[in-house]
Amino acid sequence: MIDPIQQHLLEEVAQLHEVPEGAYNIRANGKKAGRNTTANIDIVSKTDKDGIDIIIKPGTKNESVHIPVVLSESGLTDLVYNDFFIGDNCDVTIVAGCGIHNCGVQNSQHDGIHTFHVGKNARVRYVERHYGEGDGSGENIMNPTTVVELDEGSYMEMETTQIKGVDSTVRVTRATLGPDATLIIHEKVMTHGKQHAKSDFTVDLNGAGCHTNVISRSVARDQSKQVFLARINGNAPCYGHSECDAIIMDQGVVSAIPEVTANCLDAQLVHEAAIGKIAGEQLTKLMTLGLTEKEAEEQIVNGFLK
Amino acid sequence: MIDPIQQHLLEEVAQLHEVPEGAYNIRANGKKAGRNTTANIDIVSKTDKDGIDIIIKPGTKNESVHIPVVLSESGLTDLVYNDFFIGDNCDVTIVAGCGIHNCGVQNSQHDGIHTFHVGKNARVRYVERHYGEGDGSGENIMNPTTVVELDEGSYMEMETTQIKGVDSTVRVTRATLGPDATLIIHEKVMTHGKQHAKSDFTVDLNGAGCHTNVISRSVARDQSKQVFLARINGNAPCYGHSECDAIIMDQGVVSAIPEVTANCLDAQLVHEAAIGKIAGEQLTKLMTLGLTEKEAEEQIVNGFLK
Repeated sequence: MIDPIQQHLLEEVAQLHEVPEGAYNIRANGKKAGRNTTANIDIVSKTDKDGIDIIIKPGTKNESVHIPVVLSESGLTDLVYNDFFIGDNCDVTIVAGCGIHNCGVQNSQHDGIHTFHVGKNARVRYVERHYGEGDGSGENIMNPTTVVELDEGSYMEMETTQIKGVDSTVRVTRATLGPDATLIIHEKVMTHGKQHAKSDFTVDLNGAGCHTNVISRSVARDQSKQVFLARINGNAPCYGHSECDAIIMDQGVVSAIPEVTANCLDAQLVHEAAIGKIAGEQLTKLMTLGLTEKEAEEQIVNGFLK
Repeated sequence: MIDPIQQHLLEEVAQLHEVPEGAYNIRANGKKAGRNTTANIDIVSKTDKDGIDIIIKPGTKNESVHIPVVLSESGLTDLVYNDFFIGDNCDVTIVAGCGIHNCGVQNSQHDGIHTFHVGKNARVRYVERHYGEGDGSGENIMNPTTVVELDEGSYMEMETTQIKGVDSTVRVTRATLGPDATLIIHEKVMTHGKQHAKSDFTVDLNGAGCHTNVISRSVARDQSKQVFLARINGNAPCYGHSECDAIIMDQGVVSAIPEVTANCLDAQLVHEAAIGKIAGEQLTKLMTLGLTEKEAEEQIVNGFLK
């Protein structure tokens, strides 16, 4: 059911070389292409719309769920709703991602709306990768929406990566944090060609003692454009931090618009942003070690995006 | 022509205890209350609308212009356009400011639109203070708009201060910088009661080698609300920095929304913001030195706003 092109996409978005261990749901060209559940993790297709419910029993530890999506037909528009119900005291890893291979003239689009209900004292590591390829003139479009609800004492770490081949993306994340909850977001975006990328984060720090850290690293090459918006609202005694570091190359354009609002006397909010090109001395240093300018640039960009 | 209440306002906004040296124009209750020009600085009333043109000859050094405005009648709405033409190679100080004494039930409002045309290699220090007082129920409203055009190699330093008694303010600053021009902005705002203050800066870094630094320090007490917007657009090889530090007290609310956009590969842009209450250890330290909590707070706030 999975052809070699799709297999390559799966490797790119989920580092999957074979069928993953644990629970998984593979979606290919808008249809289910494989599923596995475990004693603790159930996956149920929605009946009212496209998408799945992922139900993780309270206390589930050291298990993982993979839910990659691949599109290899040009002209497909795929809209999917995935809801995660993560029980109290869980400790799980969730790997999502979308790979598009578009060799046609029509646009291929995947819009995923992921909602996380994270139970008390649960820990979640959520990894999301977006990747596009194809030599057709059709665009690869991905608009992921992530909604996060963190219950008391829970902890979620989100790593989102868009490295290559996505022509247009609007990435929306909305999070509400309960007491003593923590949300750490690491975003990495690289755009090239004429790509557009917009990231839009809103974090409501509602519970006493909650904490967020939103860290974005981005590289805009060629004529690509990026906008980074991060809204942090401190509505309780809390700590919020956002940081956006961007490298611009060629004619790349980056806007950073963080917004911090303290609605509570005991909210402590900080943000930082820096946009600039690669420092000349860094390039020179690597070039004296024998690299060409292009190789030196690549090495600096790779290091920056880790 | 100047009564004791107005004299007190003049002291608050322009530190004027007597008639100032150099050029000046004093506006009281919407009318001219005094003017002096010098060999190098001319002040001409506009004929098409309320306001004055201040024309400073090229090469004028170490001279100053004072243009304070005072309102002591309740219910007055004053809209004034002041245009500054600062010749090449000048080095001058301009002191503006508005004081309102409102003991009535109606609102008193002063909206000043100040436009600065700064010539090549000129240096300008611009000081602006806003102050309100009065025990009536009428509000004191001030909406200053500042438009700055900096020609090649020019330098302007703006110090704006709103310490007390302004119930509502929208402060708009728009600046465009030519090659090698520098704009330094220091803003200090303290709000109390139910006051609202919005600062809105847009700096277009258009000339190669130009540079801006926008620094805001603010304190929001009681139920007051503040919004700080700073938009820096790097359209040329340039350096831009913005910084917003805010202290919240009581139920004060502060939003900081800086926006940096690099439209040029050689634009280097940085911003930082921090919002929080006075650190507990700072208070404790001063209280062990014998201050009450209130005195310690006052001392920290005064030091923060210098």
